[in-house]
Parts: sequence; structure tokens; C-alpha cells
Amino acid sequence: MTRIESARQGRITDEMRDVARAENLAADDIRRLLAEGKLVIPKNRKRGFAPTGIGEGLKTKVNANIGTSQSRCDMAQELRKLDTAVQAGADAVMDLSTGPGRSDMLHAVLKHSPVMVGTVPLYNAAAGYLEAGRDCAEITSDDIFRAIEDQAASGVDFVTVHCGITRHSLSVLEGCGRLMGMVSRGGSLTAEWIRKNERENPLYEEFDRLIEIARAYDMTLSLGDGLRPGTIFDAEDRAQVTELIILGELTLRAVSAGVQVMVEGPGHVPLSMIANDIRQQKRFCDGAPYYVLGPLPTDIAAGHDHIAGAVGGAIAAAAGADFLCYVTPAEHLSLPGIDDVREGVIASKIAAHIGDLEKNIAGARTRDRLMTEARGRFDWEAMFGQAIDPEKARRLHDRADHPGADPDACSMCGDLCALKTWERAVSGKQSP
Amino acid sequence: MTRIESARQGRITDEMRDVARAENLAADDIRRLLAEGKLVIPKNRKRGFAPTGIGEGLKTKVNANIGTSQSRCDMAQELRKLDTAVQAGADAVMDLSTGPGRSDMLHAVLKHSPVMVGTVPLYNAAAGYLEAGRDCAEITSDDIFRAIEDQAASGVDFVTVHCGITRHSLSVLEGCGRLMGMVSRGGSLTAEWIRKNERENPLYEEFDRLIEIARAYDMTLSLGDGLRPGTIFDAEDRAQVTELIILGELTLRAVSAGVQVMVEGPGHVPLSMIANDIRQQKRFCDGAPYYVLGPLPTDIAAGHDHIAGAVGGAIAAAAGADFLCYVTPAEHLSLPGIDDVREGVIASKIAAHIGDLEKNIAGARTRDRLMTEARGRFDWEAMFGQAIDPEKARRLHDRADHPGADPDACSMCGDLCALKTWERAVSGKQSP
Repeated sequence: MTRIESARQGRITDEMRDVARAENLAADDIRRLLAEGKLVIPKNRKRGFAPTGIGEGLKTKVNANIGTSQSRCDMAQELRKLDTAVQAGADAVMDLSTGPGRSDMLHAVLKHSPVMVGTVPLYNAAAGYLEAGRDCAEITSDDIFRAIEDQAASGVDFVTVHCGITRHSLSVLEGCGRLMGMVSRGGSLTAEWIRKNERENPLYEEFDRLIEIARAYDMTLSLGDGLRPGTIFDAEDRAQVTELIILGELTLRAVSAGVQVMVEGPGHVPLSMIANDIRQQKRFCDGAPYYVLGPLPTDIAAGHDHIAGAVGGAIAAAAGADFLCYVTPAEHLSLPGIDDVREGVIASKIAAHIGDLEKNIAGARTRDRLMTEARGRFDWEAMFGQAIDPEKARRLHDRADHPGADPDACSMCGDLCALKTWERAVSGKQSP
Repeated sequence: MTRIESARQGRITDEMRDVARAENLAADDIRRLLAEGKLVIPKNRKRGFAPTGIGEGLKTKVNANIGTSQSRCDMAQELRKLDTAVQAGADAVMDLSTGPGRSDMLHAVLKHSPVMVGTVPLYNAAAGYLEAGRDCAEITSDDIFRAIEDQAASGVDFVTVHCGITRHSLSVLEGCGRLMGMVSRGGSLTAEWIRKNERENPLYEEFDRLIEIARAYDMTLSLGDGLRPGTIFDAEDRAQVTELIILGELTLRAVSAGVQVMVEGPGHVPLSMIANDIRQQKRFCDGAPYYVLGPLPTDIAAGHDHIAGAVGGAIAAAAGADFLCYVTPAEHLSLPGIDDVREGVIASKIAAHIGDLEKNIAGARTRDRLMTEARGRFDWEAMFGQAIDPEKARRLHDRADHPGADPDACSMCGDLCALKTWERAVSGKQSP
């Protein structure tokens, strides 16, 4: 029986209880939302770890992508990124490895990760074909499902599957006059396959086969957005929305069949379109969890796309997005390094928290309240404790040694501290 | 005659022409908006530099605060920060020095800065009293106006004056039950003065004296928000809005008297309140330029407040804020270092640009369009050229040397580049 089926039968599983405890919510609410497809707990039957929920009423979660590429393939380094991401607060990692030794890498990640692990199985199939010098259009339907089944059997908790790239959505794309065409790797591989083979996308045509694999392992499907915009000028066009409508239909089918589903979203989106994108996904997909990449409200922040992504992510989360895929400073430029991973996770955590304040998620405001109170009483340890990044907050404060000055104050204002002055104004005490 | 008076008489000055050229707008539109008080060109009669406009229809501008404190007083370091800020794209700097040698520091900044310079004259008066071991409540009205006049005579382009801290606004504050009281240095000093002396704020009571000084030097007044919230829980309360109403009345008086005025805004503001704050300022202040600090939509981003500030700043700018005061990673922790200054300016520039895209400011979309086109043709030099931070974009890309791989692609995707795959999908070419 899958987790959704248990939930529908009114049975609260250990995972639901764990998530309820972590979120400070009632277990039966978790069960109900899971039964309705509004919340997922991505956890493969084969893996053991403290599960995390994603969806309505829960804290916004953050994913960090790691993994080798063909030109940069250092497994130890990628595992260090995993540690860094988790330590910085990532709730999930996706292993997007496309370099040699992908399978070993995934097994190491699954063994090592204390958080849910996702993959894009098509990358594995495509990288294998490229390594063998073969055209990716020769990939067979069986190759694709075998890659998914292999990864499911390895214990992967959620897989991105680009089911919404179809002959129909590609025909809509043709008339859109996009500046960037397709920027999704899985999406463009699928598009190439459909065009060269003049056949329908196997992940769409044989969606029931996908459902069966997902059921067997209680693996969550993350319906990929192959038609996500790669520039703000392509955002929210007919192609993107056509794909989202297809993903909504598939969500309904999968959830009805007892399979947990998330839906993926953009990408590059102008600021004022972000909230509407979120509302549309929730409408089309009957409230299924929404997993967004960014969104980036400008194209020119290269080197600092984590900041542009935090802007978009905060607005998205506030509007109802449930899961943010991090964007690192290296986005659009290179495979991220360790520091980039850290910066990317922290930026997404800030965005997620800003969203949680707006969604009034249990416990979110408490942290800001405790920080405020700590500031009011100059309790630096308590401030570091509430900070999203205690380590950096402490480092920036402690570098500022100022012998002889008020130990309460910071080096920014010294004696001219507004809080101290205000204290004097209220108490009538003398200036120092 | 002041710049506003020239504008009202239909005379287009060199400054208006320079601003029109820089913004790619008609000089007569600049003149009209300036006459209406909807735009300022902060430039003291005594200074010569290429002027910049702030206000309606113009690109959102960014200010960087520099300056010594009592506990960290290294003038050379602060001048390096000035260079760093300007190089990163700051449109203005405020010298907030409170350490010894403040006057020399300000003269050096005024001499050195190629951009407009602002100050908070009250800091100078208060720091002097503290150095002399005297109570700040003993500062006289003449001391305050002398500090303003001295700085105006030195060539300061705009001054922050906390005119909205009055007996009335302080009485409203009393009933607000704030968690953080006052977090504005100038505001709290003024509050202390009012309370201990049981007299009205000289900058409010003798506002005409301020107008006369500003007229004499054509110095822009920046009406400070002493009652800005220091935590999201204090945002938009009766005290904050009472002060804003007073600032609106004073704006009208100053503009009528031919003096350019900006109004300052928060601070710590929940995400969903930011746009309303901007609209309210524009309504109360008859469209006068709005200069905001942050805003920060969460209190727990210490160490990364530049990111929280970029989120708030982008939304503020999109809603009509004209001028963003940067927030650095060191905010709430210590006086910023050189790297913090750079990060702070860049984060604010990203926010400003996202706002400009929404406000449809002339030229803003063009940059994203050129970046998009450069990405489409793998033109890395052109991408670096369009990036808000070309230096970092280049550094992150160039570290990723990947011998033998496609020189077009980046090390993130290598051969599995979505754009390359999509090209093949469209052209029907073979996989590499």
C-alpha cells in the first residue's frame, strides 16, 4: 500500500507522525492533506531517514542540486557539497550527476544523505548514450523506464520526469517565438527524441508504466517543466501554460492511483508574474505541491543569481510555492563550488522563511520575535542562535573587536547606538 | 534661484539636461517633474560632478553608507569603501562618520567622490558632545542648525533631517507597544532631546530656518524616518504613519519654497506590507522621491541582510521607491568591510534593476534582452558585459576550465547543454 492509500484509509503512518512533529501540526491534518494530494512525503520504501513533508501548511523547503558533469567529475567534492548543503539547512538534494561513475555516485549519495534524494533518470540514460558515442534520439522507451526503475530500486525518493513535453505542447511552442527555446536539459532531450523519432513522449504515452514503478517503491514523482522559460521574455507564454495544464491532468491521474506528485515550475519570470504563476499551478494541479527553480526576476544577475533567486523565491513562497530549488552564484556560469552551494542554500532559506512569514506557517514568526527580543537586550548569543546562518553572523560580529567600547553595542554605531539612546530617552538617564 | 525655481520658470538647467541624457528622457520632462517635486537632482551649488536624478520615471538609484565610528576610525579604509561602492555602481554615498576627525573625513569624501554625497548633520553635533563628555540633550538648536549649515557650506548634496520626530509623533509612539522602540540614531537622539528638554524638535519648529539653509546651497533635504520599525512586528504602526503624514506636510512646505525634498522610509517590513508602504508615501508626499532602507522582510537574516534587503528592495522599487539605501552583510553586526560594501551595493543594484523592469524604465529591459541574446549565441564576453557584476561573472565562469569540452558550453552541463540539445532538436542534427 502506498502512503497516499494509507492516508485515504485513515491510517496515520510513522512518516506522517514524524512530519507532524517536525512541523508542529496535528498528524491527522498531515494525513488528510497527503490523501488529497496537497502534501507529499518523499521517501522511497527502501530508504531510512527522518522524512520531511512538502506542501500546504508546511514550512517551505529547500533543495540543493549536486552532481558531477562530464567536464568536472570529482565524486569526493560532490559529497562534500552534500554535507555543506545539509549543514546549511537544505531539506533535499538532487544528484544530477552526468559524469562517469554516475551510478556509484548516486549510491554514495543515497547512503550518505540524511535528507531526501532526487534524480533526473533521463540524464543517466542520455549520458550513457553520449559516452557510447550514440545519438540520444536512439534511446528507447525501455531504456528510459529502465533508468527510472534502476534509480527507484536504488532508493531514490523522488524523480523528475518530463511528462509534459508532448507533440502537442511542442506544437504550441512553435508559434511562441521564444528568444531562448528550451533551457531544460530533460525537456530538450525529450523534445529532440520526439522530433527525430516522430513519436509521442514515452513518459506521457506510457504514464501508467511510470505510475507502476512509483507505486512499487512509493517514490514521489516530480513532474518536470521542460518548457520553463529561460529568459523573462519567454515567461508565462502559451507553451509554458500548455505544459502546466498537461502536468495538472497527469497529477490527477497519479494521485488517483495512489502516487505522490509534485509539480515543477520556472525559471525566469518577471516579478509581477510570479504570484500568478503559483496561483495557476495550484488551480491546474488541484493544490499539488509546487517546486520552483528560482524564479529569477532578471536575467542580468550572473554571479549573484542566488540573490535574484531569493527575490523571486520569497515572492513565490509567499504566494504558495512549497519547495524552492536553490540557485547558486555560479548559475549560468559553471558547476558550483562548495562556497557557492553554501551561499545558494542560505539564500533560498532566507526566501523560504520570508514566504513562511507570509503564509503564517507555525513557528515562523517566533524566530523573528526571538531575534527581535535578543536584539532589544543586546544578547548576541541569542541573536546568533536565531540567525538563519549563525556561523556567518558570529564571524561578522566577532571580527569587530573594539577595546574600551560598550561590550553590548556593535562596532557600527558604538556609543551612538539608537537603542541605547532610546533607552536614555525613556529612562531620562544621562548620556554615557 | 534654486533648481526647482528654474524648473518652474521653464528654464532647463545643465543639470536637468545631464540627467535627461543619462536617463534617455526628454529634458523638458525632467524639468516638469522637478518643478512638481516628483524628482530631485541632489547637487550642492558648491560641488562639481556629473549629477544624477532620483524620482519618478528614472532608474532606481542606490546609496552606500560609509564612514568611521568611534570604535573603528580608519579614514583611508573608508575612502577605499567609497571607491569600492562607486566602482560597484553606487549612485550616492552617505558619509555617516561619527569617529574623531569627522570634518576632515567629510572634506576628503566630498573632494574624492564622483557621485552625490549625503550626511546626517545631527550625528556630527552629537558625536562632538559625546567626545566632550556632555549630555546630548544639552545640544542647542543653534548647534543643530550650525552643523547643517557647516555641512551645506562644505558642499554636501543632501542631508538627512529627522523633522518628523515631534511631541505629537512621540506621543503616538507611546501607545504603540513596540518591541524595538526606536532604531534610528538621529530619531532617538531627537526623541531624547525632546523628552529631556520638554521642548519641540527644532528641526520641526524652525523648519523655515532649514529651508533657508537648503535654499542657499540648493541642497536637497532628505526627511528622515526616525520612527521606522526595527522589527517586522513594529512595521506600519500608528507611530510610523503619523511621522510619514508629518513628513508629507513638510515636503509640501519645502517644495513650495523651492527646495528639493526626498522622504526616507523603512526599515523592517513584512513582505506583503511593502508595496502599500510605498503607495502611502507617494500619496502623503505628493509623489516626492522615496528613499528606503532595505526594506527587510525578515529579522533573522543577520550575516546576509543584503539578501533580505534585495528581496524587500526589489518589491519596493517595483512599487515606486526611487532610491535604495544599501544593506550590507554586516548590518546589525558590525561596521562593514570593503567586501561587505561591494556585496551590499551589488545586491541593491539587482533589486533596483528588478524594480526598473517592473516600472518599465527606459533601457532596463534592453539589458536583459541583450543578456538573453548573448546566452543564445554562447557569447560569454557579451554576457559578462551585460551582467550587473561583470567581474564576478567572469571569475566564476573562467575558473571552470574544462579541456577538451565544447568551448561554447559551461562546465555545468557540458555536452548535455539544453540549448545545444534544443538546437539539434530543431535542426535534426546528430548528437555530438
